[in-house]
Amino acid sequence: MIDFQLTEQQTELRDRTVAFVRDELIPLEHTGEPTRVDDEFRRELVALGHAAGLVAPHAPIEWGGLGLDHVSMSEVFIAAGYSLLGPLAMNCFAPDEGNMNLLSKVATREQNERWLRPLVAGEIRSCFAMTEPAPGAGSDPRAMQTTVARDGDEFVVNGTKWLITGADGAGFAIIMAREADDDSGRRATMLLADMDTPGITIEREIATLDRSFPGGHPVVRFDDVRIPATDVLGEPGRGFEYAQVRLAPARLTHCMRWLGAAIRAHDIATAHARERQAFGKTLVDHEGVGFMLADNEIDIQQCRLAIWHTAWLLDQGEAAGRESSMTKVLCSEATDRIVDRCQQVLGGLGFTHETAVGQIATEIRAFRIYDGPSEVHRWSIARQLGRR
Amino acid sequence: MIDFQLTEQQTELRDRTVAFVRDELIPLEHTGEPTRVDDEFRRELVALGHAAGLVAPHAPIEWGGLGLDHVSMSEVFIAAGYSLLGPLAMNCFAPDEGNMNLLSKVATREQNERWLRPLVAGEIRSCFAMTEPAPGAGSDPRAMQTTVARDGDEFVVNGTKWLITGADGAGFAIIMAREADDDSGRRATMLLADMDTPGITIEREIATLDRSFPGGHPVVRFDDVRIPATDVLGEPGRGFEYAQVRLAPARLTHCMRWLGAAIRAHDIATAHARERQAFGKTLVDHEGVGFMLADNEIDIQQCRLAIWHTAWLLDQGEAAGRESSMTKVLCSEATDRIVDRCQQVLGGLGFTHETAVGQIATEIRAFRIYDGPSEVHRWSIARQLGRR
Amino acid sequence: MIDFQLTEQQTELRDRTVAFVRDELIPLEHTGEPTRVDDEFRRELVALGHAAGLVAPHAPIEWGGLGLDHVSMSEVFIAAGYSLLGPLAMNCFAPDEGNMNLLSKVATREQNERWLRPLVAGEIRSCFAMTEPAPGAGSDPRAMQTTVARDGDEFVVNGTKWLITGADGAGFAIIMAREADDDSGRRATMLLADMDTPGITIEREIATLDRSFPGGHPVVRFDDVRIPATDVLGEPGRGFEYAQVRLAPARLTHCMRWLGAAIRAHDIATAHARERQAFGKTLVDHEGVGFMLADNEIDIQQCRLAIWHTAWLLDQGEAAGRESSMTKVLCSEATDRIVDRCQQVLGGLGFTHETAVGQIATEIRAFRIYDGPSEVHRWSIARQLGRR
Amino acid sequence: MIDFQLTEQQTELRDRTVAFVRDELIPLEHTGEPTRVDDEFRRELVALGHAAGLVAPHAPIEWGGLGLDHVSMSEVFIAAGYSLLGPLAMNCFAPDEGNMNLLSKVATREQNERWLRPLVAGEIRSCFAMTEPAPGAGSDPRAMQTTVARDGDEFVVNGTKWLITGADGAGFAIIMAREADDDSGRRATMLLADMDTPGITIEREIATLDRSFPGGHPVVRFDDVRIPATDVLGEPGRGFEYAQVRLAPARLTHCMRWLGAAIRAHDIATAHARERQAFGKTLVDHEGVGFMLADNEIDIQQCRLAIWHTAWLLDQGEAAGRESSMTKVLCSEATDRIVDRCQQVLGGLGFTHETAVGQIATEIRAFRIYDGPSEVHRWSIARQLGRR
Repeated sequence: MIDFQLTEQQTELRDRTVAFVRDELIPLEHTGEPTRVDDEFRRELVALGHAAGLVAPHAPIEWGGLGLDHVSMSEVFIAAGYSLLGPLAMNCFAPDEGNMNLLSKVATREQNERWLRPLVAGEIRSCFAMTEPAPGAGSDPRAMQTTVARDGDEFVVNGTKWLITGADGAGFAIIMAREADDDSGRRATMLLADMDTPGITIEREIATLDRSFPGGHPVVRFDDVRIPATDVLGEPGRGFEYAQVRLAPARLTHCMRWLGAAIRAHDIATAHARERQAFGKTLVDHEGVGFMLADNEIDIQQCRLAIWHTAWLLDQGEAAGRESSMTKVLCSEATDRIVDRCQQVLGGLGFTHETAVGQIATEIRAFRIYDGPSEVHRWSIARQLGRR
Repeated sequence: MIDFQLTEQQTELRDRTVAFVRDELIPLEHTGEPTRVDDEFRRELVALGHAAGLVAPHAPIEWGGLGLDHVSMSEVFIAAGYSLLGPLAMNCFAPDEGNMNLLSKVATREQNERWLRPLVAGEIRSCFAMTEPAPGAGSDPRAMQTTVARDGDEFVVNGTKWLITGADGAGFAIIMAREADDDSGRRATMLLADMDTPGITIEREIATLDRSFPGGHPVVRFDDVRIPATDVLGEPGRGFEYAQVRLAPARLTHCMRWLGAAIRAHDIATAHARERQAFGKTLVDHEGVGFMLADNEIDIQQCRLAIWHTAWLLDQGEAAGRESSMTKVLCSEATDRIVDRCQQVLGGLGFTHETAVGQIATEIRAFRIYDGPSEVHRWSIARQLGRR
Repeated sequence: MIDFQLTEQQTELRDRTVAFVRDELIPLEHTGEPTRVDDEFRRELVALGHAAGLVAPHAPIEWGGLGLDHVSMSEVFIAAGYSLLGPLAMNCFAPDEGNMNLLSKVATREQNERWLRPLVAGEIRSCFAMTEPAPGAGSDPRAMQTTVARDGDEFVVNGTKWLITGADGAGFAIIMAREADDDSGRRATMLLADMDTPGITIEREIATLDRSFPGGHPVVRFDDVRIPATDVLGEPGRGFEYAQVRLAPARLTHCMRWLGAAIRAHDIATAHARERQAFGKTLVDHEGVGFMLADNEIDIQQCRLAIWHTAWLLDQGEAAGRESSMTKVLCSEATDRIVDRCQQVLGGLGFTHETAVGQIATEIRAFRIYDGPSEVHRWSIARQLGRR
Repeated sequence: MIDFQLTEQQTELRDRTVAFVRDELIPLEHTGEPTRVDDEFRRELVALGHAAGLVAPHAPIEWGGLGLDHVSMSEVFIAAGYSLLGPLAMNCFAPDEGNMNLLSKVATREQNERWLRPLVAGEIRSCFAMTEPAPGAGSDPRAMQTTVARDGDEFVVNGTKWLITGADGAGFAIIMAREADDDSGRRATMLLADMDTPGITIEREIATLDRSFPGGHPVVRFDDVRIPATDVLGEPGRGFEYAQVRLAPARLTHCMRWLGAAIRAHDIATAHARERQAFGKTLVDHEGVGFMLADNEIDIQQCRLAIWHTAWLLDQGEAAGRESSMTKVLCSEATDRIVDRCQQVLGGLGFTHETAVGQIATEIRAFRIYDGPSEVHRWSIARQLGRR
């Protein structure tokens, strides 16, 4: 029966998260020029998260998380995203959050004891090594150039990945490589490897527009990296299938976190618009400003409903590929619009780091690109329409 | 607990409505140049609705309707709107549907026996006489010029209304007039009057772009119309309050019906795009076309979620003024976009009456204006933001 | 040297056209429900045009026109488009205007004496029989199904065309057909034929959303239509090349006429916004309204500059294919936005035929489709980018 | 007579600028994380500009510039903007370029010898101290809080300005202050002062999103700053009038420079789209990508035409307030769209500093805010409409 009422537990957890972010994290936010978060600061944040009992809301209880289902995660992640520090303190940022999800579903118990447990606890970070520079796998994973070949009890990986978020300082990587002897482009394998495995090199950092992802987005080279067969994730050749397992939920948590950030920007802009006077009245009383804030309200509402709905589908055990594509397009484009309007409402202030809006505006843009650019999702939705 | 599952009864009723519209109404749709539906045809349609047990889904059971709550109405009204004949056959079109709702909540038992019962049955139609030509009440009801003055046991109404949907051929009118001796602009009274009451004249029909509203949108004059005190709706002076009672649900059912029409257009465009070849491939395989259809899918999904949510709020007994404003803006603008894209996908065909899209495109545009133009809703949402 | 100054002659002719439309045509505009213009009325209008010395501004002087270059045509056509009757009275509406242009460039002197001279004078109308129903030539002319085969001194045409603007009542047709024995899809022939030629049948009228094109947009069948070789337009097999000759200028005059119509709508909406009061002030003083009108001003300015520029290129003897595509996309989309905003500013009035805006809004939509939908032009612009 | 042909001199100067930027500046562009340009580097750039004979194209010849009119400036500034270093090397960046213009029109010969000559030569920089933090003069200059009072032969300035572009390291400031004893908000005075004048303090730098403006955007305090009467710019009390003199041309040169930057982004994205493969074909052959690039072409064309037209009006001696507002709104919004599409076409690359697009995308956003946010311009255009 259609119902939009949060349970008491959901409400309690959300409110606790809201208070945690407001009281403990926002005061720690950097002012002025943003700097990339380093791991020392990240560990301090995680310690606060542990003290608040809010670490890894998405991860299974047995591995140290709160074991929330997707609907329950929704409001918690939105509240976490209200500060760019929230997902760090609660250890539910990308790519680690998606990696935890993937491991908990595919990895062996031994693998999880080794990698998942400390990851959930925030002791280490991880990266997901899939994207490649041209002519490799960008939006089109079938173009993957990195190969893996079996050699006895080992798998040997060769190739170059880039824009590997979090790689610098990560404890381990989930590596995606296509089978060297497969020409179909359909067989890829996922492997787990500590980042200090011989042959793994961080070739260089790539300067990007964001600051909030610890470990940056480097180029990572794999030169004859030898990985024991026991460290293959799941079964060889099923990598694309596992990528799908990871993808829809990971996409959705991005939507949640960025919606939180957009709401933050909206609150800042609204407060400004209620205060600042121009041309004889308060900004918010200018329709040109008020309409922008009204559109923000509509967009925020829509993002929330779409997130809830897709989360609910996932909780029903559905793949929700189509819905998560639609929600990803909607949320990435709507939150970008929201923050853009906030900058405009703030005027000159919107182009500074005097408020959190400056950094949010800079960082949120990329969400229209990663986890599938809008164009790839639209194409995928259209293709399904064409086939039905 | 958040849930997006329709109940079995809701599903059954929706499926029955879908089948009714598909099997009995669409074959009756006029082809070629649309003509305004006359009351003879409307009565034939209602007879079909009665035979299918689908008349007045929104009206209380005691007055002859199906007594659905707002959530249950949602999918039924969307399915009804799939044909422009659906709301007529199921007697849930505007303004009658909103009028039934208002009467059932405010009118006396005697008034309802006299007016509501035959209205629910589809024996008569009604109109809602509120909008006025300049300088009277358009978007701003406080500018109302039509007056009502008490004279003993009677109330005397004077003024001119226009764009009074359904007036021509209506059995009765709900008249909105401000108290003649009130200068605050806050006291208005609603009155019920048969359309053949002396002094009520349909001055002229106004040529409009739509065809699907029976009775058109005429100018109606009230010259010393004497209405007995027993025919006042509710209490004198509380007209604006009652208008609010009518408004939010009426707005929402417009959203439902027009979403149904937009889905119809989308289905037609999709079928065309799957069939038609151009430049060496099927239209839908052109990204320029496929992306439009993907955006339609996203918009349809968002409208549906917003409708469900506002309906649920109304069912919880909330006024939902803000949410119904947001949903009205979203749905009126999104359905217009959807249908516009359908015309574009259809190419030259989209500008003809060879498919239902031509008429839907022509008629849906007005929904961004009536029941509050987008600008008035944005302003209202902004004003609430400014005050919070 | 860059210059935006009209010459004295251009200014004089524009002002004369403005006055003619305002003083002689607007008073003749139909009020209420629009009806399709019939040829009797059209001839009355042309008589007025002749009296004003404003017939066929685009046609060569030797054939009875004013012989203007494209830049000079710009402001005259914009002024003509200010009333939907303007292009009829001045005999510069589609498809006749483009047909005159094509004939004057490709036809023989004998052909022009027979067909062009009475066409320029407005004594007869013409049609351009190119578009076909699926699976024939829509946006993709290479899909043409209508064939022409040589048989001695005659050419025999077979096929079905649709959406043939002006066919009903036309004096003659320019027929486009592919060579029956050509499989490349590249050889098409244009032929001239009086509409009473045996084998040409108007199969049926197609109900469309517009009213202002005389002769409607029927389905026309060609059954073994025998056309003497002397009535071939230009050389056999070069039809696509001639279509290009016709296309860029014809596209541009559509831009001019519709810009005129959009300016009319804008003037009506602006006048309304200066007059109508709501919520304590004049509509135009509401930013929500004023911003829409400001955007109209910007769009109008941009359309005008784009038209002038493309017209100038054509006058320099350039094909201007890319620029006319860009200008077509810009103008068709911008004028549609302009008129849409006008409807919104007018509120309920915008959905009626109480002003000219209702009809303009209905008719202008199709311009985003005909003469190449926006998608085909974007694709063509992109393709050139890809190749450079 | 309408003409879009550049003169030979204009073409030559444009081509020379194109070559200068391509051959001498782009190789000097910083790669990786952008840093704010310091004055040492700026002077090296200006030396290159002098060597190329391209310094201060806008400034009068007698003061060391090239003395171009606005139309001639257009293509030169667009070409300069193609690299963010271009306007620095050619000494035509904001706010100095606008300040030179203002001085050359209003200052005395003595003032110009002292300040304008070294400014044109690029030996010193300047700032324009007008914008104030809340509750002072932001978009609404009438709210100015900084005061100036006459005291014998001196004027005494008190107040705080912020977002004063270029202040750090500037040689002098043009200060705008309202007359202390004026309550009308209409009388402001402009004064010239070396930045080392006692009482002028750079209170703090404000962290902003851009990097390309030398001298940043600090907060500047004026505490009892005593300025001799001879250093008043023009006449006391006429500051708002002079601000207008500065404004329209300064707005237009922003349009030119940013259009150049947008074209750069477009060229980079186009080159990428011609090269990169995805899903079996080149990116540009995907309509989803090609259409974005086509829209860029349309937007670039429109910006250029609008710039030329407003420049031409200024050259005719017109104030062009309305047109420069329209062109500012168009260009700031269109160039932002263009660059946004470029990021999207580049995919992950678009969010890095591997190409110039990352920095351009970050910096161009602010142009929708400074020199009047879009909202203020729309309001101003609407107000003129309301009054006509």
